Amino acid sequence: MVNSTPPDGFDHLYSDVVRETMDGSVYGSWRSIRDADAVSLSFGFPYPGSFPNQELLSAAEELFEAEADCALQYSGGEYAAGLPKIIADQARDRGIDCATSEIHLTNGATNAIDTVCQTFLDSGDTVFVESPTFMGALRLFRNYDVDISGFDVDEDGIVVDAVADELAKRQAAGETLPTLLYTIPNFHNPTGVTSSADRRERLLELAETYDFMILEDDPYGQLRYEGTEPPPIKALDETGRTIHVNTFSKTIAPGVRTGWAIAEAPIIEQFDRINAGGEPSFTRGLITSYAANGRLDQAIDDLCAGYRERRDQMVESLETRMPPGTTWNEPAGGFFMWVELPEGIDAAELLPDAIDAGVTYLPGSFFYHEAGGERHVRLSFSHASPSAIDEGIKALTDAVRTEISAAEADD
Amino acid sequence: MVNSTPPDGFDHLYSDVVRETMDGSVYGSWRSIRDADAVSLSFGFPYPGSFPNQELLSAAEELFEAEADCALQYSGGEYAAGLPKIIADQARDRGIDCATSEIHLTNGATNAIDTVCQTFLDSGDTVFVESPTFMGALRLFRNYDVDISGFDVDEDGIVVDAVADELAKRQAAGETLPTLLYTIPNFHNPTGVTSSADRRERLLELAETYDFMILEDDPYGQLRYEGTEPPPIKALDETGRTIHVNTFSKTIAPGVRTGWAIAEAPIIEQFDRINAGGEPSFTRGLITSYAANGRLDQAIDDLCAGYRERRDQMVESLETRMPPGTTWNEPAGGFFMWVELPEGIDAAELLPDAIDAGVTYLPGSFFYHEAGGERHVRLSFSHASPSAIDEGIKALTDAVRTEISAAEADD
Repeated sequence: MVNSTPPDGFDHLYSDVVRETMDGSVYGSWRSIRDADAVSLSFGFPYPGSFPNQELLSAAEELFEAEADCALQYSGGEYAAGLPKIIADQARDRGIDCATSEIHLTNGATNAIDTVCQTFLDSGDTVFVESPTFMGALRLFRNYDVDISGFDVDEDGIVVDAVADELAKRQAAGETLPTLLYTIPNFHNPTGVTSSADRRERLLELAETYDFMILEDDPYGQLRYEGTEPPPIKALDETGRTIHVNTFSKTIAPGVRTGWAIAEAPIIEQFDRINAGGEPSFTRGLITSYAANGRLDQAIDDLCAGYRERRDQMVESLETRMPPGTTWNEPAGGFFMWVELPEGIDAAELLPDAIDAGVTYLPGSFFYHEAGGERHVRLSFSHASPSAIDEGIKALTDAVRTEISAAEADD
Repeated sequence: MVNSTPPDGFDHLYSDVVRETMDGSVYGSWRSIRDADAVSLSFGFPYPGSFPNQELLSAAEELFEAEADCALQYSGGEYAAGLPKIIADQARDRGIDCATSEIHLTNGATNAIDTVCQTFLDSGDTVFVESPTFMGALRLFRNYDVDISGFDVDEDGIVVDAVADELAKRQAAGETLPTLLYTIPNFHNPTGVTSSADRRERLLELAETYDFMILEDDPYGQLRYEGTEPPPIKALDETGRTIHVNTFSKTIAPGVRTGWAIAEAPIIEQFDRINAGGEPSFTRGLITSYAANGRLDQAIDDLCAGYRERRDQMVESLETRMPPGTTWNEPAGGFFMWVELPEGIDAAELLPDAIDAGVTYLPGSFFYHEAGGERHVRLSFSHASPSAIDEGIKALTDAVRTEISAAEADD
């Protein structure tokens, strides 16, 4: 009988990219933040009271009543099969006119992004991203051994002029052009910025000129608390270069973990072909059952009210409390505010003091693939109660003021 | 505004492996079988009455009562977090002594296999498989651009002597050795064969000698209708070369689509790191809630009774009805029988006539990565009622007899 593990384990059998990246962090630095005894403004978690427990129970009862024999079967019954139609209807309301054959269901938006990566990315390819951007997407791109180039975000979204310049420069130099540009156009994570319609159009023009795909990640688009939504990039796109990715994690609950990608039918065929996620037919039927009778639309209205109140509180607390030299945006939706601390303060270095003072956040540097964001913090207003948000901002203010005083004392 | 799709679509932007495999079938040939107006012996679907609808509703009520605020949150609460412990306890009962840090949860067994592939396989690597084997695994391996070598299965499982010979030959010739050997040791899909303990030991010895991993896929192991289970390969393995993959799809229901991989902790860390499946925390909490109070153990006993009755009926019908020259195994568990039709009959060619006669099955050739299985059919006894199974075998018999008569008339 065999009885010894090789001294180096089985690392040598891993794929090249796993071996090259295996020592990278696994969100390690922020996992520890979770258990801090402080107000958490760290994560984009929905607030507890927002969960439709009773409604999902009713939906489950209705599902089992309607489809006792197939609600739990492989691929489910008509309810599970009906989910793409619900998604298509929602998308159509937002200007995306798609057929159910143009929808690929996934186990959440991250799984959808991964499916796009697996379909389009080879080792050595280039991906353009906003800088800063969603750290979960950065983590996935690294699994595909691609080069990542980041572009600044201003109050109108990704700085398209910079993207255009870089593309022209690369083309002139015969360098690699991107395969994919990844963007979060609505209530961007982490900055909260919404990209203007003009920027969206220009991205599409660049995609056509330079022959790349646009991956539009839109988990927050339906959580708008005021103003009018610019058309999704997918709605503006007449060429099929855009893959729109979305999820029910924010509009129903993260626990149902169901997302989708909308793309041209031939692309969806490839997504379906390489799919290895399995079909959680019970959850899919449950969502269809839940969405019936207007429950989903009503829930989105209720969620917007709950999040608007929290956003308003955070804005007010920041205005009232934060010392001069602190700046922020005021997002019209989504979960996040992106706050620049006064000059000389490093948000990552401040974090332990902030936790002691009674608040946690994610340092801006977490959202960059290279250096960046040192003075920024991402504050989430999605989870804490309004009073806890105020407490949290007070604690942040205390930590910042203490740091400023210490710096002045050193001078 | 952009307004034209390239005439060739976006195929040129796909990854190399997607572009090379994109014209492959998507289970196409059998999807059409599903809607046939005939007894289906095609698919490994649990029988309708086996689904725990009411028990899952109760489990959901209990879950929401216990964890109203986090059952639907990202990563859930204590119920969702408790699922690895339930899996570890089950595994321990079967001889696999593992910690929860040695378990990676997935969206079904296929997703687990894919995670193993992503972690270990590079383009050009070699994977050894049983021939025939599970077509879904073959489909996934193709996504990784690997070379597949198949080895016969006899009544004791994969023919290890052939594996040993091939390994020695490759080593002597300086050829590529496999990275992974994929095996279904219990109630193998499609043959129903259970690998002997001796074969399992020898596979482990070969894995150590030739430095490859064993991927043990065991969805049917707990559905044993008589006799004693040989130890899982993972239970025999003292070196950590085995990755054991399993699922609740067969013991609870496919619709909950939750699987797992058991491996050494450093390997699990890599699975966790590259994971893009999302965490369906509601489903995970639901399964934990369901498994409490012995509901899962009781369900497995009940399922075994239901499947045993169906297997017995299929064996009896085959014995009573099929013409001479037909042979089959008699599996002690699982879902499948592997039937060799009389000489001269091609199972794929027979299928349209069989459907007309009133039965569907999967031709044996579907389970081979190369040619093979032309005289075989895989019959599933998991889904049809015992009386429908008898009808189906009668229809199969009619189709075979008609074919034999036609062949004799031609002579």
